[in-house]
Amino acid sequence: MERVAELLADMSLDEKLAQLVGVWLNVNRDEGVVAPLQDSMQGEDVAFEAFARHGVGHITRHYGTRPVDPEEASTVLAARQRWLREHTRLGIPAIAHEECLTGLAAWRATTYPVPPAWGASFDPALVERMGERIGASMRALGVHQGLAPVLDVIRDQRWGRVEECVSEDPYEVATIGAAYIRGLQSTGVIATLKHFVGYSNSRAGRNLAPVHAGPREVADTLLFPFEVAIKDAGAGSVMNSYAEIDGIPIAADPYYLTTILRDQWGFDGTVVADYFAVAFLHTLHAVAEGAEEAAVQALTAGIDVELPTGVAYLEPLKQAIAAKKIDEGLVDRALRRVLTQKERLGLLDDGYEPEPAGPVDLDDPGSRDLARRLAEESVVLLTNDGVLPLGDAAGRTVAVIGPNADSVAALFGCYSFVNHVLPHFPGVEPGIAAPTLLDALREELPGADLRVGRGTGVDDGDRSGIAAAARLAAGADLAILVLGDRSGLFGRGTSGEGCDAESLDLPGAQQELADAVIATGTPTVAVLMTGRSYAVPGLLKDAAAVVQAYFPGEEGAGAIARVLSGAVNPSGRLPMSMPRSAAGQPYSYLHPKLGGAGSVSAVDPAPALSFGHGLSYTSFAYEGLTVGATATTEGPIRCSVVVRNTGERAGAEVVQLYVSDRIASVTRPVAQLAGYARVELAPGESARVAFDVPARLLSFTGRDGRRVVEPGAFGLSVRRSVADVVDERTVELTGPTYEITGSERLLTTVSVAPGMDIA
Amino acid sequence: MERVAELLADMSLDEKLAQLVGVWLNVNRDEGVVAPLQDSMQGEDVAFEAFARHGVGHITRHYGTRPVDPEEASTVLAARQRWLREHTRLGIPAIAHEECLTGLAAWRATTYPVPPAWGASFDPALVERMGERIGASMRALGVHQGLAPVLDVIRDQRWGRVEECVSEDPYEVATIGAAYIRGLQSTGVIATLKHFVGYSNSRAGRNLAPVHAGPREVADTLLFPFEVAIKDAGAGSVMNSYAEIDGIPIAADPYYLTTILRDQWGFDGTVVADYFAVAFLHTLHAVAEGAEEAAVQALTAGIDVELPTGVAYLEPLKQAIAAKKIDEGLVDRALRRVLTQKERLGLLDDGYEPEPAGPVDLDDPGSRDLARRLAEESVVLLTNDGVLPLGDAAGRTVAVIGPNADSVAALFGCYSFVNHVLPHFPGVEPGIAAPTLLDALREELPGADLRVGRGTGVDDGDRSGIAAAARLAAGADLAILVLGDRSGLFGRGTSGEGCDAESLDLPGAQQELADAVIATGTPTVAVLMTGRSYAVPGLLKDAAAVVQAYFPGEEGAGAIARVLSGAVNPSGRLPMSMPRSAAGQPYSYLHPKLGGAGSVSAVDPAPALSFGHGLSYTSFAYEGLTVGATATTEGPIRCSVVVRNTGERAGAEVVQLYVSDRIASVTRPVAQLAGYARVELAPGESARVAFDVPARLLSFTGRDGRRVVEPGAFGLSVRRSVADVVDERTVELTGPTYEITGSERLLTTVSVAPGMDIA
Repeated sequence: MERVAELLADMSLDEKLAQLVGVWLNVNRDEGVVAPLQDSMQGEDVAFEAFARHGVGHITRHYGTRPVDPEEASTVLAARQRWLREHTRLGIPAIAHEECLTGLAAWRATTYPVPPAWGASFDPALVERMGERIGASMRALGVHQGLAPVLDVIRDQRWGRVEECVSEDPYEVATIGAAYIRGLQSTGVIATLKHFVGYSNSRAGRNLAPVHAGPREVADTLLFPFEVAIKDAGAGSVMNSYAEIDGIPIAADPYYLTTILRDQWGFDGTVVADYFAVAFLHTLHAVAEGAEEAAVQALTAGIDVELPTGVAYLEPLKQAIAAKKIDEGLVDRALRRVLTQKERLGLLDDGYEPEPAGPVDLDDPGSRDLARRLAEESVVLLTNDGVLPLGDAAGRTVAVIGPNADSVAALFGCYSFVNHVLPHFPGVEPGIAAPTLLDALREELPGADLRVGRGTGVDDGDRSGIAAAARLAAGADLAILVLGDRSGLFGRGTSGEGCDAESLDLPGAQQELADAVIATGTPTVAVLMTGRSYAVPGLLKDAAAVVQAYFPGEEGAGAIARVLSGAVNPSGRLPMSMPRSAAGQPYSYLHPKLGGAGSVSAVDPAPALSFGHGLSYTSFAYEGLTVGATATTEGPIRCSVVVRNTGERAGAEVVQLYVSDRIASVTRPVAQLAGYARVELAPGESARVAFDVPARLLSFTGRDGRRVVEPGAFGLSVRRSVADVVDERTVELTGPTYEITGSERLLTTVSVAPGMDIA
Repeated sequence: MERVAELLADMSLDEKLAQLVGVWLNVNRDEGVVAPLQDSMQGEDVAFEAFARHGVGHITRHYGTRPVDPEEASTVLAARQRWLREHTRLGIPAIAHEECLTGLAAWRATTYPVPPAWGASFDPALVERMGERIGASMRALGVHQGLAPVLDVIRDQRWGRVEECVSEDPYEVATIGAAYIRGLQSTGVIATLKHFVGYSNSRAGRNLAPVHAGPREVADTLLFPFEVAIKDAGAGSVMNSYAEIDGIPIAADPYYLTTILRDQWGFDGTVVADYFAVAFLHTLHAVAEGAEEAAVQALTAGIDVELPTGVAYLEPLKQAIAAKKIDEGLVDRALRRVLTQKERLGLLDDGYEPEPAGPVDLDDPGSRDLARRLAEESVVLLTNDGVLPLGDAAGRTVAVIGPNADSVAALFGCYSFVNHVLPHFPGVEPGIAAPTLLDALREELPGADLRVGRGTGVDDGDRSGIAAAARLAAGADLAILVLGDRSGLFGRGTSGEGCDAESLDLPGAQQELADAVIATGTPTVAVLMTGRSYAVPGLLKDAAAVVQAYFPGEEGAGAIARVLSGAVNPSGRLPMSMPRSAAGQPYSYLHPKLGGAGSVSAVDPAPALSFGHGLSYTSFAYEGLTVGATATTEGPIRCSVVVRNTGERAGAEVVQLYVSDRIASVTRPVAQLAGYARVELAPGESARVAFDVPARLLSFTGRDGRRVVEPGAFGLSVRRSVADVVDERTVELTGPTYEITGSERLLTTVSVAPGMDIA
């Protein structure tokens, strides 16, 4: 800190402001949307040196803007850091940040499944290992900060960025998100929490549309994962949400960026702007008269670093200070945070020496293996009339039909390098092995006679191939129908940033293709590779089996194929509801009684399949749900249950504990996830799963704005999904209303003890 | 007031509580939904006398529960009032209240168009006259209070009660609503504002689902019509909304029911409970442990009168007082309001003498004429390729097709007696002349050869008649396709209370019927008799003309027929957008820039036809938009424009003035209605329309919760619809930020001066 204070005292205004911005080279800015250019790095260094003559806070997406050889690019990055050390007056290196949601978004790097797949795995330990490996790859390349994870709670499945979110349940977002952060930060790379706060809750699921939410909803549902990520997982950076909530853009709101984040939660890292968000205060939100006022509002609210490339802070803040429209102390406040982060990263050490990475394998076997395991755990078997598993399908004719059957793009989300950047570079190979589902089926079903038909595109609406596909199915013993989304940015996809859906019908003519194939009478297994849930009641009713896979990553096709064959026993559970109706959004299972079914509306909002649902090739039974006899509003509540594999093969069950506040001073959800455990069990094996639920999880924001745990009756239930209650106990919490002060533990402690083997 | 104080001092607790409840006889309660029984009044008097032995606050729907002869029923009501005078200790008569949204909801009473039709007319003067006539009919029958108007602002067209709302624009709701109130109350009948507040903003448009809104949205959009109704129109009573907003049920929220309503706005009337809303605090919202706590919460929050029939207040409050869980002073507070209202009604006068109505005509020619005029002004011509007007259609074969062509139910909303009560009384006639559109077309197109085919039902999905209907159209010179809703309660309709829609596709197989008819190539005029807007992009594109009529009331069929023939020149304008997509809700034109179209989302939320749109058989031109040179934050802003009928026939234009706050400290709608005038012009005639816009209309709730007018640039525009700007000026408001104190005038003053005739 001494070094930070020394530096700060010695800096000119230009030098200070330079630390508050990033520099993004070789991009083409057009109305806030950035399309990388296809030219070389030629000229970049000149531009860099001109821009960074007073230093620079961040280097933006050095690896993530174009397909560059990582080893070569690391040499360039090291040279730039050296230049900063040697050719700026203060010699402060930059923080290099990259996108890394599903792995480092750079050419040739391992690409993991998307966050809903992490949610489906209900396996924070595995997600933590993924975070570690992502962090290690970034660390090796000299990258300091990753712009992940996304902690937005899914609220409306029409939103294109649902595929970047973990779950519709804030507890699951918090626990899976915290695991990612712990993993990433264990390598020294800073995690950045996106998008603080409210972004997922936009009107009609449209990207950047206003958020209509009251402070209680924000506090109890939307902020919770961020709070856990900061208090429990120690996240180092936060990115603002583009959203406005009830008329106030977050980028200009000191309540969230300072009062909640720093004063209440004690956050001491940096707040970085979502790209162009500062300019949006003028150009899109219209709460600032011009660039200068936008910068003043953002800095005052608490945005420390303007991204991606500085224009919205440098000159505007300089002018504002000259005009005495803002106190230079606010610049120093942000600067101190940035320098402190650089100090923690070792960038201010005397001995800091930027080094090229040398030979590097960003897609090593260990990472691929992890991507495979996560994909395997994330496949959700929605329905199955017994057609699955297929075994090796020897001697059977199998029609493989659908736009995603032989698609590399269908493996990845919109923040993968393949779908985010490569569309700007036609002809460039993905740089990683990425077998399609068709490839994987050829490998996994060697005895089958596979016949392939596309039928229709993802969203081209082309019906010309449907009849042929149906004929293919009619002539086969089995049809595998591979449907879903194509993820991309800003209208290039059916899912992804800017790719919001109007309805939850399958895109294009895919439903017609599905209807035609199923109408043949050939048993049909539908595989959904999507970024959100679609309303497919017909498939759920009439297909022999339906598998939900989201975008499963580079090893995901094999994972799906092995689930189909039975080599892998499916264990994924839905992290978001499967809607019954294409037009019933927004929906969340976290509704009060009146938000559910009832005689007061002709519309039953209940989904076709609920949060937490997923089948297995074995079966599980529960017994002995116990809840501690006494509990107080200070908690904890202790409970446990025994789960047993009652089938013939090994498998994993996700034991789900829900809590229901029977009566409260404000309306409360009918049920809310309060703990879960993924338990692997051999046939006949059992385990006792014990939960210590802290009182904090029963808290909410009361009528007066205080966060409290109220005494009274609470239901604790074990469920196979939120709609399928296995067993329930009521516990009476005694004692006075307990007020949350902020230091409490936030999460349930779960332990799994092996039980007796009945074999 | 002296009489009130005397009474209050003299009353026992039983007598006090009796004044805080209603009595509803001869109904069957089942989970809060009331189905009238079919028996006679026999036994009622015994029940009444037993219930009302200590007096009673209200008599609930004496006329509105069953089809009763009004004269006979008025004798019974008078007898009950006399019994209260003579056989209770204090002799206090009851307030008799009825539903009266589209006319007194009683057998044989005039039934007017639904509120969206009032909105479409943009004619508050005519709505005020309707209010007068409705009030006069109630007054004649000894009814004191009407449960109307509904001031909920349309926010999501899936909601079944959209048909009870005036407009998606709060300014229009306020002005039309205030007109209704002034009319009704001019007769001495108390208006009741429904539903205070938030009800229309429920999640996914589901009835009673939670409202996700922040305090700024509530204050600036949802509360505005109520504020105008109380401050400008002096409404005497308010009914709570069933809704919860951000976790707090309104029925238990003193902030809205007391702080806003009474402390800030100075309301001194009564707050009555929406039927069963007090019980819902326990049974549905789960914020009260039982009936006693529910009653305590409601009374404390500010619900003075429990409706419909007392069980949720009488015993529960008695117990709560005995247990000292509530101060009897709160009972007195409510009681004082009720007694004051009775005093103002003359019910406490010594000379009060309840009299039977005697012979009464509830559907007299004057009322029918008014119903006709309002219907005529409310028909909106959406598209027209020149096929309209039809003239007398002499010699032409006209196919009249569709489920609403020959439907009486299609004329009325769910709060009409016909659709609300009569479904429980099969075989009972409507009691009023209600020609269907087919009847009216027979009269209006005497020369035409009308051929009739139903095609399909409103929502039965029956496709068996579609082919025959298409053949009928194919063989005709013209097809008139009459589509839409059937209004009813709780699942009996496709529109109405509890009849929420999942999507905005036309119900049942109607779209298929429309497609089949249009595919014949026969020019097709589509008439939509609906309670909401549906997404009918195909009709708007391919039909020769489309007419939007809502539920037009007992004289509405003739009004539509005369618009088709050309006897009436259409002048209605859309009070709610026509969506482009069936699944894009919620939508309101009152969105900030980011809520509209933009490159950041693949979904363009712009409607097919915008708020304010409507065609005429003549044409109008604008010129000379002037805006006062100077204006301050205290206002007013003066502007005017000349509108001229440039066509060949007389017609009415709705001149619409919008305001746009360019930059503000919170996000603001891109445009907002700030004044309007319905102007009837002969061919060649012009008029100058002048607007005095008070600063108040430019106010909003700032970041600190204060309501302010900020200096800066505002656009003032004249538009044919919100999407069709004719001309615009920018005015710079100078002066300091002005804080609204509460006494300011709320509404724009509009004056219309005849211009020069160019004929």
